[in-house]
Amino acid sequence: MEISVGRSLLESNDALAAELSGRFARAGVLALNLISSPGAGKTSLLEHTLRDLSGEFSMAVIEGDLQTDNDARRVAATGALVEQINTGGGCHLDASMILEVIPRFPLRDLDILFIENVGNLVCPVEFNCGEDHKVALLSVAEGDDKPEKYPLLFHLSSVLLLNKIDLLPYVDFDQEKAARFARAANPRLSILPVSCRGEGEGLEAWREWLREAVKAKRAKHAGTSGE
Amino acid sequence: MEISVGRSLLESNDALAAELSGRFARAGVLALNLISSPGAGKTSLLEHTLRDLSGEFSMAVIEGDLQTDNDARRVAATGALVEQINTGGGCHLDASMILEVIPRFPLRDLDILFIENVGNLVCPVEFNCGEDHKVALLSVAEGDDKPEKYPLLFHLSSVLLLNKIDLLPYVDFDQEKAARFARAANPRLSILPVSCRGEGEGLEAWREWLREAVKAKRAKHAGTSGE
Repeated sequence: MEISVGRSLLESNDALAAELSGRFARAGVLALNLISSPGAGKTSLLEHTLRDLSGEFSMAVIEGDLQTDNDARRVAATGALVEQINTGGGCHLDASMILEVIPRFPLRDLDILFIENVGNLVCPVEFNCGEDHKVALLSVAEGDDKPEKYPLLFHLSSVLLLNKIDLLPYVDFDQEKAARFARAANPRLSILPVSCRGEGEGLEAWREWLREAVKAKRAKHAGTSGE
Repeated sequence: MEISVGRSLLESNDALAAELSGRFARAGVLALNLISSPGAGKTSLLEHTLRDLSGEFSMAVIEGDLQTDNDARRVAATGALVEQINTGGGCHLDASMILEVIPRFPLRDLDILFIENVGNLVCPVEFNCGEDHKVALLSVAEGDDKPEKYPLLFHLSSVLLLNKIDLLPYVDFDQEKAARFARAANPRLSILPVSCRGEGEGLEAWREWLREAVKAKRAKHAGTSGE
């Protein structure tokens, strides 16, 4: 019975996610769902990205948290448009929550909409929010075994940001092993080693990934909107 | 409707947890539910604890994972009795899963039963497994804001192991701030700064906490089992 309840929840979420995906397609906005454990660096990555690309793209953020608006305030400090969703203890964002805040964004004027999910390596993966790509983050402090132990996120993501590489000298983390496990879950996964501390490290590869993703979305949009 | 499903799941779990709690009480075994984000160090803590206290206590472990038996093999290498539960993608252990493996343990011969939950700072907190105490772990690499953003675990735990303090020089983590947030969620929380890397650091305070908890459980057991 538990399983059938789970399935029907996921099915009704999928229907709303399809509705969202259609809205993002019609607006030509690239939607990215950022997923990781708590403290892997999603907000720090956004702070860098929003500052570094503010001259190139029009971007906005949906911040998901159990409670507090700390992350939303950090993101808003970059000047980006941000909407906070508090799940009230809930372990993931779902499509219905995103649908509720979407009217507050000028979707057609945006290039990228970032959805920062609740910090959780399990539940957010199952609830599609209409995104073009899931973006996985893994901090090297979490251990190189995580892609093997929690494979679904890596299986469904387009890119993995291996974050906090500034800590590599101080932790037992084998990058090749982590990459092998991640690629076993998803052979096409792009893996980008980065650090979001201070000035950051490796972030140009991430910005390049974003530029390509925006370009692909625009090409698709031009194709479907029938110029 | 979603909420009522959630409630009825939690209520039926609570009934099974009460059954488990009764079994642990009759056997006089201290049951501890270890909860943290992925990669905060639960398995490393167990490796140290099982080795260091093998002469003092009879201990066993239930290992919860989405998949793989990597952690169970690490724990078994210490010589401890261990049973693996694979949740098949599920985000937490629940009382029914624990009830299923309990017959495989000689409960009356045990002093401590450790339950290592799935790595997840949210869902495991809501599913009581009949434990005497929840034991929270937080890696300093996760950031000092986590007790404010994920307060329920800290609210319901008896002790917080602030792990990976060997990384303190390399991360931006304010111990006082983390402690303030954690104590706001739970004024009686014991906070123990530790490192489980190499020889370990601060672990004697944890062993002392365990000795006190075993003593309290034995006193309670002697009281309820007559005389």
